[in-house]
Amino acid sequence: MVRTAGRLLQKQGFHGTGLKQILEESGAPRGSLYFHFPGGKEQLAVEAVREAGIRTVKTVEALLAAHQDPREAMNGFVHAAAEVLRQSDFQEGCPVATVTLEAAGASEAIRAACQTTYQEWHRVIRDRLTDAGVTQARAGALATLVLAAVEGALILSRARRDTEPLHSVAAELASVIHAAVGGGGRRDAGPRRSSHRR
Amino acid sequence: MVRTAGRLLQKQGFHGTGLKQILEESGAPRGSLYFHFPGGKEQLAVEAVREAGIRTVKTVEALLAAHQDPREAMNGFVHAAAEVLRQSDFQEGCPVATVTLEAAGASEAIRAACQTTYQEWHRVIRDRLTDAGVTQARAGALATLVLAAVEGALILSRARRDTEPLHSVAAELASVIHAAVGGGGRRDAGPRRSSHRR
Repeated sequence: MVRTAGRLLQKQGFHGTGLKQILEESGAPRGSLYFHFPGGKEQLAVEAVREAGIRTVKTVEALLAAHQDPREAMNGFVHAAAEVLRQSDFQEGCPVATVTLEAAGASEAIRAACQTTYQEWHRVIRDRLTDAGVTQARAGALATLVLAAVEGALILSRARRDTEPLHSVAAELASVIHAAVGGGGRRDAGPRRSSHRR
Repeated sequence: MVRTAGRLLQKQGFHGTGLKQILEESGAPRGSLYFHFPGGKEQLAVEAVREAGIRTVKTVEALLAAHQDPREAMNGFVHAAAEVLRQSDFQEGCPVATVTLEAAGASEAIRAACQTTYQEWHRVIRDRLTDAGVTQARAGALATLVLAAVEGALILSRARRDTEPLHSVAAELASVIHAAVGGGGRRDAGPRRSSHRR
């Protein structure tokens, strides 16, 4: 039920998604809804945002474990997101953005869930940047740029029905990360065009 | 009526905004709605997105005329957007993003209006970057990064109820623009820390 809610929220938003549709598409019995989710649609939205948030952290952590260079992990994430967009006919972008924009002003519980999720994503990116040699001071701001730019690119890609903005943004971010890592990087932080340490 | 619709769409989205509320808050007579907007809420949303898009282009063009350095124009825009967010209790972010995420998949007319608006914003940023000396090849991708990052930062700021992501992203973008302008800039492109042409 939480997964179905997440998918529907991602496609059509909080106000556009009814409990009836969530029940129908998940195949869950009506009685289980208010048993498991006494807070109704608001609670279901909170759980869906948290579930999607944790799932995304796992995906990103797996990519980071597979790629030593944070730019390759980011490219892997962006390519996967582009594939989800294409396969869903440009309906499924970020599972948190739509809910934030529509419902964060109306429900404090939903806003808090969205904020927590973005914070977790930000932390994962920031920590990987510091591991790659970016200074603590810079890594926070750079992680915000990466997160914001990918979120924005998902919106632009949905408006255009074309994943080009995602790929374009990923290439620009890769240059910015390259420069940040190169400026104070470690030897094992991945390929660099030039480094005075070599 | 279009302005009221725009404000409500920005705060609560397409599905969360009813025609009744638009009529009540705009003070327009009910008869005028279907006279001027025979396409109903969908048409009103299209007009609201276009109106907000053109208004934003005018704001950005005024900022670009007032500041020779594109980074100062961008900072001016971000500070104005942060002020709107704060004054609206973090309800009024981008007038196009919410509608794109919720309704672009359901209405081709709305999606096309959102795409046109983003394209116009992108063109204004791109043209200013090429004026400042960024190569044609780079300016398109850099404009996409700027637009995407500001859009994303507006979402993060709404989730956090804090304009810090907007300011953080603006500072990072200023560095990226600085580097891009410095790499192939013109003398009149504004203050730079160093240039081999000087």
